[in-house]
Amino acid sequence: MSKKLTSRSEDYSKWYNELVVKADLAENSAVRGCMVIKPYGYAIWEKMQAELDKMFKETGHQNAYFPLFVPKSLFEAEEKNAEGFAKECAIVTHYRLQNDPDKPGKLRVDPEAKLEEELIVRPTSEAIIWNTFRGWVQSYRDLPLLINQWANVVRWEMRTRLFLRTAEFLWQEGHTAHETKQQAVAEAELMNNVYATFVENFMAIPVIQGLKTESERFAGADETYCIEALMQDGKALQAGTSHFLGQNFAKAFDVKYANKEGKQDYVWATSWGVSTRLMGALIMTHSDDHGLVLPPSLAPNQVVIIPIYKSDEDLEAITEVANSIISDLRGKNISVKFDNRTTHRPGAKFAQHELQGVPLRLAIGARDLANGTVEIARRDTLTKEVVTLDSLNDKIEGLLKDIQNDLYKKALDFRNDHITEVETFEEFKTVLETKTGFISAHWDGTIETEDKIKELTKATIRCIPLEGKEEAGICVFSGNPSKRRVLFAKAY
Amino acid sequence: MSKKLTSRSEDYSKWYNELVVKADLAENSAVRGCMVIKPYGYAIWEKMQAELDKMFKETGHQNAYFPLFVPKSLFEAEEKNAEGFAKECAIVTHYRLQNDPDKPGKLRVDPEAKLEEELIVRPTSEAIIWNTFRGWVQSYRDLPLLINQWANVVRWEMRTRLFLRTAEFLWQEGHTAHETKQQAVAEAELMNNVYATFVENFMAIPVIQGLKTESERFAGADETYCIEALMQDGKALQAGTSHFLGQNFAKAFDVKYANKEGKQDYVWATSWGVSTRLMGALIMTHSDDHGLVLPPSLAPNQVVIIPIYKSDEDLEAITEVANSIISDLRGKNISVKFDNRTTHRPGAKFAQHELQGVPLRLAIGARDLANGTVEIARRDTLTKEVVTLDSLNDKIEGLLKDIQNDLYKKALDFRNDHITEVETFEEFKTVLETKTGFISAHWDGTIETEDKIKELTKATIRCIPLEGKEEAGICVFSGNPSKRRVLFAKAY
Repeated sequence: MSKKLTSRSEDYSKWYNELVVKADLAENSAVRGCMVIKPYGYAIWEKMQAELDKMFKETGHQNAYFPLFVPKSLFEAEEKNAEGFAKECAIVTHYRLQNDPDKPGKLRVDPEAKLEEELIVRPTSEAIIWNTFRGWVQSYRDLPLLINQWANVVRWEMRTRLFLRTAEFLWQEGHTAHETKQQAVAEAELMNNVYATFVENFMAIPVIQGLKTESERFAGADETYCIEALMQDGKALQAGTSHFLGQNFAKAFDVKYANKEGKQDYVWATSWGVSTRLMGALIMTHSDDHGLVLPPSLAPNQVVIIPIYKSDEDLEAITEVANSIISDLRGKNISVKFDNRTTHRPGAKFAQHELQGVPLRLAIGARDLANGTVEIARRDTLTKEVVTLDSLNDKIEGLLKDIQNDLYKKALDFRNDHITEVETFEEFKTVLETKTGFISAHWDGTIETEDKIKELTKATIRCIPLEGKEEAGICVFSGNPSKRRVLFAKAY
Repeated sequence: MSKKLTSRSEDYSKWYNELVVKADLAENSAVRGCMVIKPYGYAIWEKMQAELDKMFKETGHQNAYFPLFVPKSLFEAEEKNAEGFAKECAIVTHYRLQNDPDKPGKLRVDPEAKLEEELIVRPTSEAIIWNTFRGWVQSYRDLPLLINQWANVVRWEMRTRLFLRTAEFLWQEGHTAHETKQQAVAEAELMNNVYATFVENFMAIPVIQGLKTESERFAGADETYCIEALMQDGKALQAGTSHFLGQNFAKAFDVKYANKEGKQDYVWATSWGVSTRLMGALIMTHSDDHGLVLPPSLAPNQVVIIPIYKSDEDLEAITEVANSIISDLRGKNISVKFDNRTTHRPGAKFAQHELQGVPLRLAIGARDLANGTVEIARRDTLTKEVVTLDSLNDKIEGLLKDIQNDLYKKALDFRNDHITEVETFEEFKTVLETKTGFISAHWDGTIETEDKIKELTKATIRCIPLEGKEEAGICVFSGNPSKRRVLFAKAY
């Protein structure tokens, strides 16, 4: 709580890194690129998990658990997928340590304990899961197979940042198998929609649903759906992806089913995932120079009550009022914490809860007791008002709804203000250097143009928006004809 | 569902292996010793997790997440711990694959991508967590630190069995830091108690709380508390452990705090864990030759309703009754599944739900409709009765309670019938060969005697029961004096 945060305008990246650590969300560990998710950060992630898990189950999915390791021979079975992840995977080669004969008290890898086949620590689980699905699918009666897994995965990234890009991260990965192409496409679209609904309604982050271009697709997918959000610094963040995998994995792992006529065919597949990266999106969308701002739906404590007292008698009287408020709020399923620590002064508590983004702060002092009032402060607007005790419950309920809605509205206005249509490459570059955000531009559909633009500007095609309409135009870079606009941006 | 299970009397071990697979709980994977937990098995594990997590939070613990990997230098810091796990750990040595120049289309480990320091896949997380705690603890104000983690861990076991002993398993591991020895001991005892309460009340498995002998202690612990259960074949199973770690890890990782007088001291530690091994205990305690028997507290579906019909009209009328029952039961928080699959006959459904241990099965046919009745069958006793619709709700609620209690009572009676006090080594060996179960015997307290008995009989000291009273006696093996009885058994 000691020193002030770097401001966003001063150094956005530094602000983010400091905030994550100071708000007790996560920290770097002794393992290169791997983070420790601290209790406060983990409590937010648990709330996200609980809601997503409910949504997955409501759409017919079941959880299961598959091995952490993928034998190399399975890993390489689907070629494109293998190629996509080969350059960043952790590999287990041995299964035993022994005393180091040269260094007393130290251990070394036992050279005798070499695995016959190396094991890849899963960067994603298509390979091990599709190898398992072969035994689970015989006929159309076994389909659709709608499976989800909550797990850790490892991608040996060279440049890492807390939550946004870490060597190990937590995620869920859905893996489904279907009778027809149409059903698999519908599933991929459904789950992208589930993600959009969750991110908008619970995280209060507006997203654009779209399709990835071929070069930005998941390795092994025929089509990748995504939700794209915009951060306060004008950079885009891919918040979730849902892949239509065609029959690629079914063919690589020989997963066939007998249809109603008894004919054998390969099944159709999807996979979809969101990860602890969402924590990064949450932080960067709403927070300010004072610290974290949390939407009430995901705040571990929606309300904190701080007693302000000079005597034990005052504290006793305040505690009585606080307990009655707490009991009322809990009855309405509102989470509330009474911060009656004697080791910290009120000022330090105010600062801490502000930094940690608690949506509403109630302060109760001796004067409030006399007047039958409470001071209530909103974290998002930093505004305060004095409320009478008898109107407090309704007030809090109303404010929590307002905050949730206002955060979304504010992010949506910002996002909408930062979608710029451009017609020329000069405009394109100017927007990137000044206003930033999404650039809506015509593109000729070639990988060459996409690559060239990326090389020159660092902007990538974030998505081909699903809601975009056909519109004849001219590619902003090549001048060749284009049928629709796509969204470019610099991205996390 | 096709072929019948091997019976327990025929081959208990085969019965277990078949049951786990046929009841859709888990199966072996392509990775040696690692299992796939199937949706039905995972649903039971989720129920166990949810209840345990609630109990941990009610006792003041917070969840967090620490890296999967432990750098070798941290792993070896606490010597006894390192020694205990060195012989069975998976080791990551490289971080990239490349195309194999000798085998087109195949990948191989990139020899250039060798890690500077090997990473151990966590077999348990004391090392990485205590290295982190050093930054979290400065003064007594930071204590106690009460942390839990839900995670996967890897121990490269040579002989594995689904749930009971797998190379990768899921667990929770609590890690706490305290000001005083007394507080840490109290925490270790509290959490062992939490485990006992959970296993007895939710899993309906009676346990004996005790202390491990020195040779059976967790590597790095000063004292290991445990809960020991007895399986139907008379073998014991360690269902959970809670360790008082003294200042061993605090010293190895230099975790000190300033006490109220400003003096620096090492903190005191505990760790405690239960794992997917509990699934094995659950299966082996209650199940029978027909399949799984689940206590209602942990059954994914507590009730299944099966329609028995010849015409579409019958099905329609039965569905109406079923929907009304479902709505009533869900209102009472009873989970119920209406198995109206048209792809399976009633007989096949009966067999499947019996195999999968659904506590209550309701069958509704045309005659029931006419009579306003339902046939209700208990899975544990395999008894059936016909009940009128108007008494059904209370009946079901009552039966679910009865089943939960009866399962516990039955297991308790079996366990109590299988604790045999012996005075001589001849008796000891006879009991092991005939009745099996726990043997309560005097032991002289030496590792030599313990080892010798193990060598001769394969029985180990499961625990020194906490409730055991002082009682002067003579060691069953050495004839030397002993102060109390301990419990021996063959164990999983």
